[in-house]
Amino acid sequence: MSVQGSVHEMKRIAPGMAAVSGEMKNRALLAVAEALSEKKEELFAANTADLKKAAENGLKSAVLGRLKFDEHKLAACVEGLKQLAALPDPVGRVLLDRELDEGLELRRVSVPIGVIGVIFEARPDAMIQIAGLCIKSGNCAVLKGGREATETNRAVFGVIRDAVAAAGLPANCLLQVSAHEEIDELLKLDRDVDLIIPRGSNAFVRHIMENTKIPVLGHADGICHIYVDEKADQAQAVPLIIDAKTQYPAACNAVETVLVHQAVSVEFLPVLVKALRDAGVTVHGDEASAAIVTLDGPCLSGEDYRREYGDLEIALRIVRDTDEAIDHINTFGSHHTDAILTEDDAAAEHFFSLVDSAGVYRNCSTRFADGFRYGFGAEVGISTGKIHARGPVGLEGLTTYRYQITGHGQTVGDYAEGRRAFHFRDLP
Amino acid sequence: MSVQGSVHEMKRIAPGMAAVSGEMKNRALLAVAEALSEKKEELFAANTADLKKAAENGLKSAVLGRLKFDEHKLAACVEGLKQLAALPDPVGRVLLDRELDEGLELRRVSVPIGVIGVIFEARPDAMIQIAGLCIKSGNCAVLKGGREATETNRAVFGVIRDAVAAAGLPANCLLQVSAHEEIDELLKLDRDVDLIIPRGSNAFVRHIMENTKIPVLGHADGICHIYVDEKADQAQAVPLIIDAKTQYPAACNAVETVLVHQAVSVEFLPVLVKALRDAGVTVHGDEASAAIVTLDGPCLSGEDYRREYGDLEIALRIVRDTDEAIDHINTFGSHHTDAILTEDDAAAEHFFSLVDSAGVYRNCSTRFADGFRYGFGAEVGISTGKIHARGPVGLEGLTTYRYQITGHGQTVGDYAEGRRAFHFRDLP
Repeated sequence: MSVQGSVHEMKRIAPGMAAVSGEMKNRALLAVAEALSEKKEELFAANTADLKKAAENGLKSAVLGRLKFDEHKLAACVEGLKQLAALPDPVGRVLLDRELDEGLELRRVSVPIGVIGVIFEARPDAMIQIAGLCIKSGNCAVLKGGREATETNRAVFGVIRDAVAAAGLPANCLLQVSAHEEIDELLKLDRDVDLIIPRGSNAFVRHIMENTKIPVLGHADGICHIYVDEKADQAQAVPLIIDAKTQYPAACNAVETVLVHQAVSVEFLPVLVKALRDAGVTVHGDEASAAIVTLDGPCLSGEDYRREYGDLEIALRIVRDTDEAIDHINTFGSHHTDAILTEDDAAAEHFFSLVDSAGVYRNCSTRFADGFRYGFGAEVGISTGKIHARGPVGLEGLTTYRYQITGHGQTVGDYAEGRRAFHFRDLP
Repeated sequence: MSVQGSVHEMKRIAPGMAAVSGEMKNRALLAVAEALSEKKEELFAANTADLKKAAENGLKSAVLGRLKFDEHKLAACVEGLKQLAALPDPVGRVLLDRELDEGLELRRVSVPIGVIGVIFEARPDAMIQIAGLCIKSGNCAVLKGGREATETNRAVFGVIRDAVAAAGLPANCLLQVSAHEEIDELLKLDRDVDLIIPRGSNAFVRHIMENTKIPVLGHADGICHIYVDEKADQAQAVPLIIDAKTQYPAACNAVETVLVHQAVSVEFLPVLVKALRDAGVTVHGDEASAAIVTLDGPCLSGEDYRREYGDLEIALRIVRDTDEAIDHINTFGSHHTDAILTEDDAAAEHFFSLVDSAGVYRNCSTRFADGFRYGFGAEVGISTGKIHARGPVGLEGLTTYRYQITGHGQTVGDYAEGRRAFHFRDLP
């Protein structure tokens, strides 16, 4: 069947998937965990084929590392599925319970979104995690993994699909597409797909956002800032910035720009730059910074600060005060995660209330922006949008809600014409 | 200044508007209420000019009625603004408070969306209500009213703008655009406008949805259903359906199609059709209905049921069972509001769990789908989308959230490498 036909059929079965009990969804998650363990040799063999091909194609060792699917990663996936099964059902939660009038009760109840398309990078463990999140949240999902992991993904998907069907979930509640052209086909299905979650390079995510009418959850850029205030604990600031830059430089929540209050720049910058260089980081900066420390490359200004290095490179800028730091972040940032380092409560409060980002932090690393670290169990992605879920998106972001009213024959005319009146009483 | 320039400037001041205290926002709302009362003669004079022109252009009396702005409507608007001022601040609510580790606290806090474009129909009172909702929720707003109300809207907007500025809110936190071409200009500003809320005809809303990359909150169609189950209380069903069709036939939540269980169709349809005809409703239906009652016009089937009459016209269809009713609603409906009439708890439960609509009702009129009737104070529109707010959208739907973390120098490396561990403790 064509992608269009399969997805249209998926939309039709989505209400049934949404109505599956929490118990059955948990049984399916555990069945998937068990099946992956049982069939592991098959999965490792497929992965070996992918790795061989990737090595032949000269892929970088970092990519090969992400592509590799071994006992260690399998164990983490199995553990993740078990943890997911142990979480409360995100569907069917009563979010509001209000008596509008005697015998007329309004409820807001969480429900799955419906059909979700997830397009993700090379890591085969991503498919297991994302499929798990979709099952637990009662969504149907179209999964498209990275080309480098074709064989592994095919094997992993086959195991998941069979286990899910055997556990009694609607057949075809999960679908894998593998050809790159099928992404474009998927993006056109705005009548049947409720949400697209792309995970990948900035250019790829931007391509998706610009080529579909389906709502897209995610982020293209991750230009995160750390602002070192006049009242920062400087000894604490240095290892924190090193962590935010070097702990995983390719991550979207790694810091790209450090803004330093002018009053402490002469004292702080030399110490910071030495520590950055010791950690192997290339250091760029504005003219004012260059007057204090030696920088790599030409001085930066304006639009230069829109760059996401995604590597061991960082930009510095000296700012007049907290307001200039906030203005820089709101202008050149990507509304992802931005931190202030300060011992001054008023400055932190000011920063928290005016920085227009999904995450605003005080005195900790921007790298904390992550579903696991927020205690969400897992994340399907990080959103910088303001409509629907924002920041790390876990199970809750894969649900929406529905209003239910149960009455006893009430008509609106009685209320509009004053024969009856609402009393709006929230129920416990 | 061009619309583009003004909206870009608005985006810049949006974080400041978002940070305005609840007290100041309430003061602004009361100042607007007072100013509208003080300047009422000016507003009524502008409205008289609009009404005169509309009458000359031969507009229908229903439109003239909506266009009229008199003492009665002013009083309702003033009362609405006072009620809004009395509501709790939707911004700054702590939605999650979690200690990730000793001295590392995560909070999810509600914040305004930012810049919202609202395009609404002729009613001048809509501008007052929408401006009030945007002020209360801390959003900047671009307002575009209907052409017929040009003079009234201009006068009303002038009063609102001056009162808001005098109350100390950021100048230009509200902007009015009046030319129709400016809508197209607005729709292109996806970098500066966070959300568009269109209210108007189906064709107009669909035009907006198809011509912008900005997220759109609302609905094009309002094809609502009432399903009369085998176990319905038939005496209750008749006045309820009459209310849902005739109380305000042009409303999006008026019923368009009545589905009747085959087991009760011979008994119920003649009674229903008589009552509908007595209420002046034209009655269409499928072949099976035509075998029981006399219908107006040719028999309906398939795609005919996608029609939103928006008038004193209704469609009937006989269904085999609840599942066929659900399937009809999910296929031909607009995911707005759909009701089951039944005394059977299991059938109602089944309907509630499988109908994929923003509102699912039991034993009451679909006309209850409304922000006021849900106790939200007011509504900015009704959304049939699944991303962000759904159903009647009040203040809460005009907010999003932001994550805040306050730490004491924590780095991610310590957690990634096992030197520290999260304990995830939700705080009361």
